Amino acid sequence: MSLFISFEGPDGSGKSLQMDLLVKDLTAKGLDVLALREPGGTAIGEDIRSVLLDPAHKEMDPVTEAYLYAASRAQLVRQRIRPALEKGTIVLLDRFIDSSLVYQGIARGLGTDTVEKINRYAVDGLMPDATFLVYIDYEEGLRRKKHQEGHSLDRLEQEKDRFYRKVNEGYRSLKDLSPGRVRLIDGAGSIDQVHSLIWSQMQDLLSQKGLLP
Amino acid sequence: MSLFISFEGPDGSGKSLQMDLLVKDLTAKGLDVLALREPGGTAIGEDIRSVLLDPAHKEMDPVTEAYLYAASRAQLVRQRIRPALEKGTIVLLDRFIDSSLVYQGIARGLGTDTVEKINRYAVDGLMPDATFLVYIDYEEGLRRKKHQEGHSLDRLEQEKDRFYRKVNEGYRSLKDLSPGRVRLIDGAGSIDQVHSLIWSQMQDLLSQKGLLP
Repeated sequence: MSLFISFEGPDGSGKSLQMDLLVKDLTAKGLDVLALREPGGTAIGEDIRSVLLDPAHKEMDPVTEAYLYAASRAQLVRQRIRPALEKGTIVLLDRFIDSSLVYQGIARGLGTDTVEKINRYAVDGLMPDATFLVYIDYEEGLRRKKHQEGHSLDRLEQEKDRFYRKVNEGYRSLKDLSPGRVRLIDGAGSIDQVHSLIWSQMQDLLSQKGLLP
Repeated sequence: MSLFISFEGPDGSGKSLQMDLLVKDLTAKGLDVLALREPGGTAIGEDIRSVLLDPAHKEMDPVTEAYLYAASRAQLVRQRIRPALEKGTIVLLDRFIDSSLVYQGIARGLGTDTVEKINRYAVDGLMPDATFLVYIDYEEGLRRKKHQEGHSLDRLEQEKDRFYRKVNEGYRSLKDLSPGRVRLIDGAGSIDQVHSLIWSQMQDLLSQKGLLP
């Protein structure tokens, strides 16, 4: 049996840290786990990631951005995720198509329908068995960011701030868009509290799939 | 009035040289011309071109390839082509969506329907007024390649050779797929002969658009 889990959430939600903790727990149980991130996860995907994150590319259109994420995703699905699932490896993925729906579809305004259509051949019918959406509300995310950066927001950061608010609202609507697959995890607690919430859901998934030793 | 022309054809057809000659003629007539190539034509597109052409990326899936071409195209349409056409500049483009239909759709086997759907939001309804398909048949193309490389084909080159045959057949079918837009130019003659064929068609297009001085 194969199991494919994606992690989603706004920046500052702690999702990447939570994914690392889950990898350790699963590995400690003797399970075979592959942890990947988007964009990236393949040599081609990491090169695409560099194009996406290059600060010189300020003129990048949201449609171009959506295609680049889809290109990285197409390669990741075919080169890493599908082969691993076929071998029975548990695949944990930091961001997948939901990030495109939220960032390009909702926050950049392309619409979730357009982004879904752009991604149709990238995903190729492969959706996660479950998605852990680690959610923190806008004010909490902002508080964490300010704490991290140690100062108040200047004009450019206020612009980023408006974008961050849209991302946050996008994630809030995501759990309603895919209620069966997306599992809302309250990210407001301590690292251990959040990990317990995820681990409890994960045990159900492992037992449904017959993967518990 | 705006005029948007693309050039297509298999490698060795001489299309890029013919486009350069046409740029010179149009410029000599005092017309405002912008010459672009795909993939590329923007800073982001040139970075995508590097990812596509990197010889280390042998594992690239044809779907990933199609998305990367679409990403470069999306940026080129929005950043360069549309703004130039709006100013009344004549835009000449070395390869456009037809190259994706032929290379990924036909030669790599994704199907023209899939490639068209992948490109829908990249092209965003903007198609060339005319496409000059500079066509040479498979044997002539091969003869030119062998002449250029000065030796017969080894195993790897035979593989490339089979691919080249599919590209050639793909272009042959393209003129039937878009009979109104695609204008078949016999590329078998001398450089001057081919240029005359293109110039004659171009004069009709310029006069239809009221662009002849």
